[in-house]
Amino acid sequence: MTELTTIVHDASEIVVGPGTDEPLERYENAAIAVTDGRVTAVGPTNEITDEYPVENATHAINADGKSVIPGFVDSHTHALFAGDRSDEFAAKLGGEQYQDILAEGGGILRTVRAVRERSDDELLVNVLFHLDTMFAHGTTTVEIKSGYGLDTETELRMLDVIRRADESHPMDVVPTFMGAHAVPEETDADTYTDRVIDEQLPAVADQGVAEFCDVFCEEDVFSVEQSRRVLEAGLEHGLTPKIHAEEFVRLGGAQLAAEVGATSADHLLHANEDDRAALTEAGVTPVLLPGTAFSLEADYADARAFFDDGGSVAVATDFNPNCYSQSMGFAIALACVGMGMTPAEALIAGTHSGARALDRTDKAGMLREGMPADMAIVDAPSHVHVPYNFGVNTVETVLKGGEPVHRGQR
Amino acid sequence: MTELTTIVHDASEIVVGPGTDEPLERYENAAIAVTDGRVTAVGPTNEITDEYPVENATHAINADGKSVIPGFVDSHTHALFAGDRSDEFAAKLGGEQYQDILAEGGGILRTVRAVRERSDDELLVNVLFHLDTMFAHGTTTVEIKSGYGLDTETELRMLDVIRRADESHPMDVVPTFMGAHAVPEETDADTYTDRVIDEQLPAVADQGVAEFCDVFCEEDVFSVEQSRRVLEAGLEHGLTPKIHAEEFVRLGGAQLAAEVGATSADHLLHANEDDRAALTEAGVTPVLLPGTAFSLEADYADARAFFDDGGSVAVATDFNPNCYSQSMGFAIALACVGMGMTPAEALIAGTHSGARALDRTDKAGMLREGMPADMAIVDAPSHVHVPYNFGVNTVETVLKGGEPVHRGQR
Ligand SMILES: [Zn+2]
Ligand SMILES: [Zn+2]
Repeated sequence: MTELTTIVHDASEIVVGPGTDEPLERYENAAIAVTDGRVTAVGPTNEITDEYPVENATHAINADGKSVIPGFVDSHTHALFAGDRSDEFAAKLGGEQYQDILAEGGGILRTVRAVRERSDDELLVNVLFHLDTMFAHGTTTVEIKSGYGLDTETELRMLDVIRRADESHPMDVVPTFMGAHAVPEETDADTYTDRVIDEQLPAVADQGVAEFCDVFCEEDVFSVEQSRRVLEAGLEHGLTPKIHAEEFVRLGGAQLAAEVGATSADHLLHANEDDRAALTEAGVTPVLLPGTAFSLEADYADARAFFDDGGSVAVATDFNPNCYSQSMGFAIALACVGMGMTPAEALIAGTHSGARALDRTDKAGMLREGMPADMAIVDAPSHVHVPYNFGVNTVETVLKGGEPVHRGQR
Repeated sequence: MTELTTIVHDASEIVVGPGTDEPLERYENAAIAVTDGRVTAVGPTNEITDEYPVENATHAINADGKSVIPGFVDSHTHALFAGDRSDEFAAKLGGEQYQDILAEGGGILRTVRAVRERSDDELLVNVLFHLDTMFAHGTTTVEIKSGYGLDTETELRMLDVIRRADESHPMDVVPTFMGAHAVPEETDADTYTDRVIDEQLPAVADQGVAEFCDVFCEEDVFSVEQSRRVLEAGLEHGLTPKIHAEEFVRLGGAQLAAEVGATSADHLLHANEDDRAALTEAGVTPVLLPGTAFSLEADYADARAFFDDGGSVAVATDFNPNCYSQSMGFAIALACVGMGMTPAEALIAGTHSGARALDRTDKAGMLREGMPADMAIVDAPSHVHVPYNFGVNTVETVLKGGEPVHRGQR
C-alpha cells in the first residue's frame, strides 16, 4: 500500500474541474486524499475518510468553512524581466503620451536593455520573487516567455534561467521561446525575422529547453507573413506554436493560429465571428488577458461570444512590466466583473482551460484521480469568493503535489 | 528622555503626506523614529540614526529596498454585517436581473435579516475577521457604519459591536450611525424617517458611541428633504453629518451636504460642476468609492474634475456585501487606472484626505512629527507600486502606534 501523503477534509466545497451536466464537478462537505503526490480520491468527507483515515496522513488539513480548487494554471506570462516600469505607469497617469515615453527610451526595449545588463543569477532572483508571489496567490503551473533578449545570447540565457526557476521552485514552469516579441533597435522586422529563424531558433532548439514558440503578430510589429515564417520554423524545430493575435487591430493572427495548428491564440480583443469559428474548428484555445485590458484601459475581449458559440476560453495574467499583476485570482475577478463570465466559467478558464492552452490537461488544472495534487485552499466557503472578494488574495494554503505551503509574506 | 520605541531605517522612500510644492512630502534613503507611539523624527537615514541610534530601539526594522507610507484611512465602509451575498454576485453574472434577485428576498434587506438574527458575539467575530484583512492590507484607521439593523435595538447593537471592535483590535475604528441606510419592509420612507429621528437617534445619542450620522439620499430611498431632517436631527444630538449622494441619479445630496456642513459627501458619480463648487466652498470632503463602480460595472465618478477645480478627493473601499473588497490598495489602483488619478494623488486620497473625511487630520493619514506612528511598509521601492502592482497586496508590515505587526494569512 502506498503512503497517504495528505488529506484535506471537511471542506465546504471541493471543485474537481469542469462538469458534464453542471458547469463544475464539485462536492460539498468534501475531502481529498493524496498519495505519492497524486489525487487518490475526492468526494464527501465521510466516504473519503472511511477509506483514508485522517490519522494515517503525513499532512491532515481540516478545511472547515473553506473551499478547495485546482491550482491555477497561468498560461501566459512574461514573468522573467529586470527592473520595472512603475515610473512609466505614473507618467502616463500624469498625462504623458505613450509616444513621448517611447521617445525617451521607455517601453519594452527599455526592459530588453535591463535584461541584457543583468547576470543570470540576478535574473533568477527576480523571477523567483515573482513565482513566490504567484504561488502565494494559488498558481501551481505557469508559462513564462523569453523575448526580452532579442539576441541569441540573451534569449538563450532567459530560457536557461526559466529552466533553473522550474528546477528550484515548487511550481511547474513551462518555457516559451518568444524571440519575435519586438523588433530591436537599429533593424527592421524583416531582417530581424530572418535572425529569429536562422540564428535564434536553431540555437534554442539545440539548447532543448523551450516547449512553445510565440510571436507578437500586430501592426507595426510582426506581420502575418513574418509570424507565419517564425511559427513554421518553430514547428520544424519541434516547438508548438502560440501567437499574440488581434490585440490592437484585427490583422489575421487568429486565422494564422488555426492554419498552423497553434495551441493557443492570445489577447483576441479584435477577433470577430470568423476568427472565433476558425479557432474552434482548429482546436486552438483562446487565451484572454483581462489584466492587460484593465491596465491599458482598453475594452475587454468579448469572452461571452466564445461561450455563446459553444466554446470556451482560458484566462491568464499576462504578468509583465506593463501589466504588473501576478494574481490569477484578480484575473478571474476581471473575467467576471469586466468580461461577464460566471465565477464557474472563470475558474475553469484559470485552471483546466489554462492547462489546455499549455497542452497539459493530463498534468494540471483538475483534481481528478491520478492527477498531480496541485490545489489551493481558499479561505471562504466557495470558489465564488475568488472573484467576489476582488482585490484580495483569498488563497490561504497552496499544495503542490500534495505538499502544503502556507502563505508567506505576499 | 522618552523611550525610543521603533526605528525603520534605510527605506528607499518614506512618504510623509501631501507636499507644498510637490504632490508628496517624501524622503529617499530615509528613516523614521517613533517614541511613545508617535513620530519623533523622519528624514534621511544618516541624519535620523545619528540622533536616534538603531541599537536603542525596541524594534529596529531595516527597510532596505522597501518604502514606507502612512497607514491607509478607509473613510467609508459597511464592514459589520453577517453572511455574504456571493450567490447574488454569481446570479447576476449568470444573467439574472437585479429586480428578480430583490424579489427573491436578496439585496440589502437580506443582510438586515441576517444581522438581526446574529448575536453580538457572532457579529464581533465577523467584523474582526474583516478588520484583520484590512489591517494586513495597510489600513490603520477605518470608519464603519451601522445600518443593517433598521430598528433601534439592532442599530444600537451594531454600534456597540463597532465600539468593542475598536477596543479589541489595534486599528482605530470610527463609528457612524446610519439608521437611514434603507427603508425596512412593510413601512414607507416618511414613516421610517420619523422613526430614525424620534426613536433611533435619541437612543444612539444616549448610548454615546456614534460620531457621525449618515443617510442614503437617493431616488426611491431617502429624498433630499428626508435626508435633511435626519442630518439636522443628528446635528442636534451632536452627530456630524455625512451623506451618500448622487450615486445613481443627481438628486441634490451634494448641495444638502454643503448646506448642513457635512464632513463628507460620498459616491458623487452624478455630481456636476455646481455640486463640486458647493462642496469645495463649504469644506465638505468628496469621498469617491471606485470599488463600487467597478463591482457594479458603472462609470467612475469624475475624480479629475475635482482636481481640475483645484480641490481634492478621498478614496475609500465602501466594503460591504455588494462591494466585497477590504483592500485600500486596490481602491487606490482603481483610483489610478479607472479614474485617472496619479499614484501620488491616489495615495493622499487614501490617507490624509481619508482622515479629512473623518475629521481627524491631526490623528491619522500623515507621518509628521507628533502624529501617531501608523504606517505601512510596502515591499517595493516606491509608493507607486501600490497601484502599479494591482490586484496584489504590496504591504508587508503594518505599524500601529509604532508597534509592528507582520502580515498574517491574508
Ligand atoms: Zn504577452
Ligand atoms: Zn456606503
